[in-house]
Order: sequence, then C-alpha cells, then structure tokens
Amino acid sequence: METFMSYAMQLAHMLNGQTSPNPSVGCVIVKQGRIVGFGAHRYAGGPHAEVEALLMAGEAARGADLYVTLEPCNHHGKTPPCTEAILEAGINRVFIATEDRHALVAGSGITRLRQAGIDVEVGLLKDEAVALYEPFWTAIERKRPHVTVKVAQTMNGTIATGEQRFITSEAARADGRQLRGIHDAILVGSDTVIIDDPALTLRSSTGIEPVRVIVDRRGRLTETFQVLNDGLNPTYWLTEQPRTSERANVTVFVGTYATPDQILELLYEQGIRSLLIEGGPTIQSAFLEADLVDTIELYQAPSLFSGTKSLTTEQDIEDRFDLVKMNQIGQDVHLQYVRKERMTCLPD
Amino acid sequence: METFMSYAMQLAHMLNGQTSPNPSVGCVIVKQGRIVGFGAHRYAGGPHAEVEALLMAGEAARGADLYVTLEPCNHHGKTPPCTEAILEAGINRVFIATEDRHALVAGSGITRLRQAGIDVEVGLLKDEAVALYEPFWTAIERKRPHVTVKVAQTMNGTIATGEQRFITSEAARADGRQLRGIHDAILVGSDTVIIDDPALTLRSSTGIEPVRVIVDRRGRLTETFQVLNDGLNPTYWLTEQPRTSERANVTVFVGTYATPDQILELLYEQGIRSLLIEGGPTIQSAFLEADLVDTIELYQAPSLFSGTKSLTTEQDIEDRFDLVKMNQIGQDVHLQYVRKERMTCLPD
Repeated sequence: METFMSYAMQLAHMLNGQTSPNPSVGCVIVKQGRIVGFGAHRYAGGPHAEVEALLMAGEAARGADLYVTLEPCNHHGKTPPCTEAILEAGINRVFIATEDRHALVAGSGITRLRQAGIDVEVGLLKDEAVALYEPFWTAIERKRPHVTVKVAQTMNGTIATGEQRFITSEAARADGRQLRGIHDAILVGSDTVIIDDPALTLRSSTGIEPVRVIVDRRGRLTETFQVLNDGLNPTYWLTEQPRTSERANVTVFVGTYATPDQILELLYEQGIRSLLIEGGPTIQSAFLEADLVDTIELYQAPSLFSGTKSLTTEQDIEDRFDLVKMNQIGQDVHLQYVRKERMTCLPD
Repeated sequence: METFMSYAMQLAHMLNGQTSPNPSVGCVIVKQGRIVGFGAHRYAGGPHAEVEALLMAGEAARGADLYVTLEPCNHHGKTPPCTEAILEAGINRVFIATEDRHALVAGSGITRLRQAGIDVEVGLLKDEAVALYEPFWTAIERKRPHVTVKVAQTMNGTIATGEQRFITSEAARADGRQLRGIHDAILVGSDTVIIDDPALTLRSSTGIEPVRVIVDRRGRLTETFQVLNDGLNPTYWLTEQPRTSERANVTVFVGTYATPDQILELLYEQGIRSLLIEGGPTIQSAFLEADLVDTIELYQAPSLFSGTKSLTTEQDIEDRFDLVKMNQIGQDVHLQYVRKERMTCLPD
C-alpha cells in the first residue's frame, strides 16, 4: 500500500510548481493489485487529481482503492467536490496521506467519505505529504508567501562574490536552480544584480519559470542589467524612487519597501504564494531577523576562504530551525532547515 | 529535459509488471516548461502511453515537446500507430529514451517521425530504458521468457533451510517480493515446496500476483501444500507423473520437463514473458548450466554459517555476468548481475 501512495506522491512532485495557488496532488486507483487509473492536478482551475484518475479508471473504479496525497475537497470550487466523484464512482477504500489544513477542507472531506460508509485511512507517507503541502498552508494561514532562503557558502561561512563567482559544484547549482522551478517567485536585492548581473531563470526547461522580484529601494538599477532587459520572465521592480520601464515583462512597483513585511504583502496581493530568496546576505538577514523565513536551503562547499560572511555566521539559526534533511550533492553538502514553529496539519 | 524524461521513466516503472506481453511505457508532454499531459500504458490492448498523454493535453499538445521512454510504434496493432497520433496532434519535438528492438518497430517509428519533419532526439536516459526493456526484447528474440534468478545467501555462500528460515532482513525480503510483482511467473522446485511450504504471493497489494510454477517431475507433491491448496494465484503444476487437481486455479501439465529448455518452452506457449526462479539451488543451477539465466538478483546477509551451499559457490558467475548494481538494503547488500551477451538495442 505504501508503494501505491509513493506513486501518488511521485505524481504530485512531478507537477509541483505549476499548480499555484493550488497544491500539487497525485492520485492512484488500484484494483486487485493493478493500477487502473492515475492522475495529478495540472493547473489551477483544472481537473483535480482524483477526477482525472477516476475518469481514466472508468468502470474499473467500482470496488477499487484510491490513494491520494491530500484530503479530497468537499466544496464546490472551480470544480465539483472530489468527495462526490469518489462516492459516485463506487470506490471501496480511500487512503489519504494527510488531512488538508485549508479551512475549506480541514477534515470535512474525510468526514463526508466516512459518513457515506467508505473505509478511509489517513497517514500513509504523512511526513512527506506535510513537507510538500506546508508552503501552501503557510501562505493561507499567514496570508503571505511561504519564504525559502537559499544560501551557498564555504565551510567557514563565507559566500562567493565578484571573481569567486561559484563556490559550489555544478551539481549543487543545478539542484539550487530546480528550487526556482517549484517557487512562484525568486527575490534578490539590488546589490546582487549590480555585482553578479544574474538572469535568475531556470536556464533549462525543467519547470515553470518564476517571477523575478528585484528589491531596489534606492533605485540604483538601470535597464542595462539582464533582469530588467532580457524580456524573459515576468519581473517585479520594487523601488521607492520614481522609475518606469518600457519592457512588457517588467512591472514597476513604486512604494515603501523598508521592511520584509511590506514586500511580502505586495507579493501576496500579486498572487505569489511561495518565494525563494537568493541573496544577498543583507536582504536574507532582514527576512530572518523579521522571523519571516520558513525554510533554509543551505549548500556547503568543502572549501575555506575568507570573504563576505554568509548569513549563517551572523544568525542564530539553531534555536529557530530544525535540520530536516542532509544529503551529499556532487562534492557539496545540502542541508534543509525548517522553522520549528510551523504550520503542520490538523491534530490527529 | 532529463527531468521530464525521468518523469516519463517514473510512469513506466509505476506500471511495470502489469502490461505484459507489452513493455511498460511512460510519456510526458511539455509546453513552455509546463507539463500539459502525461500517460502510461496500463494493460495489453489498452491505449498506449503517448495516446493517453495526447488525450490529456488536448489542444495544448500543438507545438509541445513529447518525452517517451520507448520508440513510438508505427504499425496498426490493437491500437492505431502512435506516430500518426503524434503527427496529428502537432507535436514539435520528440525525445525518445531508446529505440525499440521489437521487429515491428525497430527504428521505423523514428524514421516516420523524422520524415514528417519532426525533430527527434534519441538517447536521453537510455541506459535506464534499456534495462527496463531488455526482458521484453529477450522474450521476443529468444522466444522464451526472460529468466531472473533470485538468491538470498550468507557471506560464505550458504542459504537458509528448514529452521534458519530467513537469513536476510525484512527490508531485503520485501525488496525481493517486489521482484515478484514485475515478473509474469515465479518458479520453484518440489524441494522448496516440501521444505518451506511457501505461498509465493506478493503478500501485500503492491503489484500483479505472478503465476506460480511448480516443477515436480517425480510427482512428490500433494494438495496439502499451500501453492496447490490455497486457491489464490494461478498455479502451473509441472510433472511427469499422472496427476490431477480439482482446484480452479491449478493447471496440471503432464509432460517431459527434464531440461530447463522444455520448461521455458511450455511457459512461453502459456504467455509467460518473464520468469523469476526463487529456488532451490538445484533448479537454479540447472538453468545456469544451460545458459538460460539473464539476470541474477543476489541478496547477501552479513552472517556466516555452514549449511546448504548457494548456487554462487558452485557456479562461475564472473565470466558470464556483469555486476550492474550494488546497493545496501537494511543490513543486507543487494547485487544485480546481468548476462554479458545480451539483447541491447539497435546499433546507434
């Protein structure tokens, strides 16, 4: 049974990044050990994973087991409730990885199915599901984007600047770029633009290109930099100075952006539900100090050199974050920390 | 691009075991970095992966890239050729993991697409695809099932018998049972049935239950043993003695089964395309000596005890097999060997 849920989870991860503001959900329908249908939510407003899988299974759904990574919805949104589709199809048992903390669902999908006499089991691969959905719950409950900070640093906590352009290996950098594909937007400060002139794109077609958010309070940037000039991904230029742009992909926001709160408020209004902050250390530290960081993705190279200090040398990460993942990528180490006080799911 | 092919490969692995005698194929359709459709072949005679993915993508397929794990078919079988479906849908580029060695395809699908002006790239994740499809090619070209031998042994090459019922950990045994789910049939000799009285089922609903093949030349078995008595999976009882069974799931084959060739000929006639031989050492050695083993799955426990010798102590595996995989499962080591002289794919 765990195997089938892991397939549903693979489907959810496959579509992760392109369903915002909806979560990415995978579903597998099994009858007599045979997968008769599978589906995943592909885009906001599109058919839900359960509906796609039921459609594929057709009559074979009758008496089958359904595995889904998130509690089925029980309300009329852009699509009818999945609970009704499950009941109509004659599904026998439903395995759900985790309850949905979203107030519109929050256990009502499970209750509806159980009241209709369906055997519902919750919790198969729950930890993995909670990790996948926490950003969505953060956005809903905190009414701001889920914030991830990405850092690449040396063993002694310095970061690359100028000539030492990359400190981590190509494998680690590719992993970091994949993070861009599962976030709605990516944010850097004007310092990073001036020093590195980055493109901030995925550079290979492995996901949805994120919105580029440039925080340039003092209005130091001009259209000579790639992000304001290349005509590629949508770019938000946040500044407190009078600035304009002729580029169709650039939107200038003139306002007060002295605090991370103000930036997140604007981005949330623009529909951004997950934000990746790539640098530099000043802007990352500002978000950390304001307690507005949910996840830290740290890539550490096995090198030692003096230079600009990374945020990890200044901040007391340990008290507020849990280390939840550590793995080797190429010659580097990747560590993932998530905030201790976090949106998990409904009490068991 | 490798990411999208890896998703297609995940889909193919998800359905592996339930498409026989067809290979398991996965397909993902991508437009502007977004997955607009995906599919997998679910059962012989059912829609092919490409057709399912194109149906899901609908109009979005126009101008999109299609990733598929195996060369699309170009002939009218139970379904129309996938090449025509791809052309009609207006797909822009096609990425294929590997050519199909099946004589009915064998490059003609690629040629057809290229002649129609489509940009076709072959070879993304090719090694993984070849490993997945080799059993199908073996069956077609050698006109016998692809044969895998599974061994669980100690560090000094002995196997468990009688009281020392399990030598490997639960994790390794679970891994071994998953092998059953991706083979059409599982074979043991009468010794194994008499000593262990095994059920030879998946024991959890993680795949298609295989046919159980019992080689009992001398007719020593009776219906007191589980495999001939439990009424579960289809069971073939191969014997040279006059035997009958009242069980609906048991088919008695009375004939000459002195050599592995004779056994494989019968199984191939019955539609078996992949065979897992679980034991004992006598029957496994017979297949090895007849050069009729394609893959060896070896689980080695970190224990040392004297006892019945495993086939690896008697056979010269090294000369005829390549070690292609080695990984740790629980406290045990899992090694996969494949025959050196093997069906790979068409010349590049």
